[in-house]
Amino acid sequence: MENREVFVYIVISIFRSLQFLFWRFRPRYNDVTSALTRPLTSAASYDFKFMSYMVNKAKSVNKALEEAVPLREPELKIREAMRYTLLSDGKRVRPMLCLAACELVGGQESTAMSAACAIEMLHASSLILDDLPCMDNDSLRRGKPTNHIVFGESIAILASQALIALAVQKTTSSTFADVPPERILKTVQEMVKAVEGLVAGQQADLAGEGMRFDSDTGLEHLEFIHIHKTAALLEAAAVMGAIMGGGSDEEIERLRSYARCIGLMFQVVDDVLDVTKSSEELGKTAGKDLIAGKLTYPRLMGVEKSKEYAERLNIEAREHLLGFDIDKVAPLVSLADYIVNRQN
Amino acid sequence: MENREVFVYIVISIFRSLQFLFWRFRPRYNDVTSALTRPLTSAASYDFKFMSYMVNKAKSVNKALEEAVPLREPELKIREAMRYTLLSDGKRVRPMLCLAACELVGGQESTAMSAACAIEMLHASSLILDDLPCMDNDSLRRGKPTNHIVFGESIAILASQALIALAVQKTTSSTFADVPPERILKTVQEMVKAVEGLVAGQQADLAGEGMRFDSDTGLEHLEFIHIHKTAALLEAAAVMGAIMGGGSDEEIERLRSYARCIGLMFQVVDDVLDVTKSSEELGKTAGKDLIAGKLTYPRLMGVEKSKEYAERLNIEAREHLLGFDIDKVAPLVSLADYIVNRQN
Repeated sequence: MENREVFVYIVISIFRSLQFLFWRFRPRYNDVTSALTRPLTSAASYDFKFMSYMVNKAKSVNKALEEAVPLREPELKIREAMRYTLLSDGKRVRPMLCLAACELVGGQESTAMSAACAIEMLHASSLILDDLPCMDNDSLRRGKPTNHIVFGESIAILASQALIALAVQKTTSSTFADVPPERILKTVQEMVKAVEGLVAGQQADLAGEGMRFDSDTGLEHLEFIHIHKTAALLEAAAVMGAIMGGGSDEEIERLRSYARCIGLMFQVVDDVLDVTKSSEELGKTAGKDLIAGKLTYPRLMGVEKSKEYAERLNIEAREHLLGFDIDKVAPLVSLADYIVNRQN
Repeated sequence: MENREVFVYIVISIFRSLQFLFWRFRPRYNDVTSALTRPLTSAASYDFKFMSYMVNKAKSVNKALEEAVPLREPELKIREAMRYTLLSDGKRVRPMLCLAACELVGGQESTAMSAACAIEMLHASSLILDDLPCMDNDSLRRGKPTNHIVFGESIAILASQALIALAVQKTTSSTFADVPPERILKTVQEMVKAVEGLVAGQQADLAGEGMRFDSDTGLEHLEFIHIHKTAALLEAAAVMGAIMGGGSDEEIERLRSYARCIGLMFQVVDDVLDVTKSSEELGKTAGKDLIAGKLTYPRLMGVEKSKEYAERLNIEAREHLLGFDIDKVAPLVSLADYIVNRQN
């Protein structure tokens, strides 16, 4: 047994040394070529470059979103409600993923912008529903009153519905000369699959409240919810971007697997932060899941094992990116690192 | 003034005589060729043929709807809720209109079946929302408990959302060899326009409650609601069928105008029935609008003028059908007659 541990240690050391050498003597020094080879939990310098990448993408997305939902009569009230949730602060992780996937397979940012906006609309639509009194009954989100608190339940529900319609409309009307209609149809199909996923995930979430699980059935239930509620949208984002960008079936499926990993990872990290950080650090009430008796990863497998699980998902996510052009893969590798390392 | 009335009377008499002669000496005796030329408020023999046409269409549609929403895990509860409203009794007027429009422009029934089902899904989705406690707060629809009464509010809202997703999915996956993807995209765009219309109409309806209108602003408000809530879906049904069937732009626009007329007419007749029929005759509570102080056509223009308005809309609807193949137009002419003459 001890011999085996020594052997594993040596193998890891050799691997780390090779990894370092590979990193040290990589062809050019920029944050792109090193993306797949640099160690996990990346250095601050990369993060900085990735952060500015993300900020730039968020800027373009915010501009497009702002233009996509002009305030107009006669449904002014609905429009206000749509904009309230859609344009509220957010990192725009999903649209960024959509645009990065499109660019990774050779498309332009503009080619996938409608799809990226559509994904953010579906996200906003699901947030509005989640917060309703008959669902999670939340009156605050990111420190602001939730949609139905500001606009009333009926307008909130209609705005949520209208956001889905607008998402479909946005995507179908993205008729660029270089995107054949077959591709747009395929993109819309992925999008509605995500909506169906969101609905199924939310139902499972509601059904699970107050139920008792052992660690196996609990984990199964939890993964089901997260694969549908969190991962479904991230998956749709990556896949829609890849389809619009003209990716091959193989590329699309690789990005789907990558996105599913980071989707799950996102949730594992979220659950860990809830029990390890203070409310101040999080910017929202810490320990909320614990108090609500909610099924979480730390509760089912402990904090340490949850962290390990997140790291494993990050490695797996990265593996799905192998085979892509190493010059273009940096944003997606950094995104995964960013998700696993985030502190709030 | 009296001379003018005499003149109008003579013109109408000549018109009626010509209409009768045209009808009497039409080329062949069947219910199809006479469709456009026979007098309004058609004879029972036509109605019988139309009724069997409608029953046949409803049968095909019900079969397709049944297959479109199989009960399946994991979202079993949502599926049950979707089926509860979608498969409940109904005349399937909207799908029938969609199929008839498709056939009118030269398509097959099967070409528009997915679109026809999609339209019925949107209709069901809007009924679920309309009945919610925060909207019209209805606990009964067609004598059955409403969706949220049976399944709870959260499941009802999710089912409504899922029906929209399924409608889009149905339409985009109707990839027949003979329907180019451009046409399917156009069909989806019409569909989401209808959803946006429904949302705007429902908002206006809610906003109007308790407001005071004079007869002009009231009529404007009322028409806005009905054009969006009732006519939007009928319009989408006809237009989607026409697009799927390969109709020309001119044919599509003519069918749009026709459908808008019968959509408005449908609502005018509904309002008239509410004040002129007993609850037993209607199969629902009569005088409900009156008690609720709701804005209706009889309230704004009186019962007689409302009936005249419905007749005028029927004539206008029929005019939009002129120019189509007279052999194929019968179902749509009869549908308009059926709507204006219905007794419940």
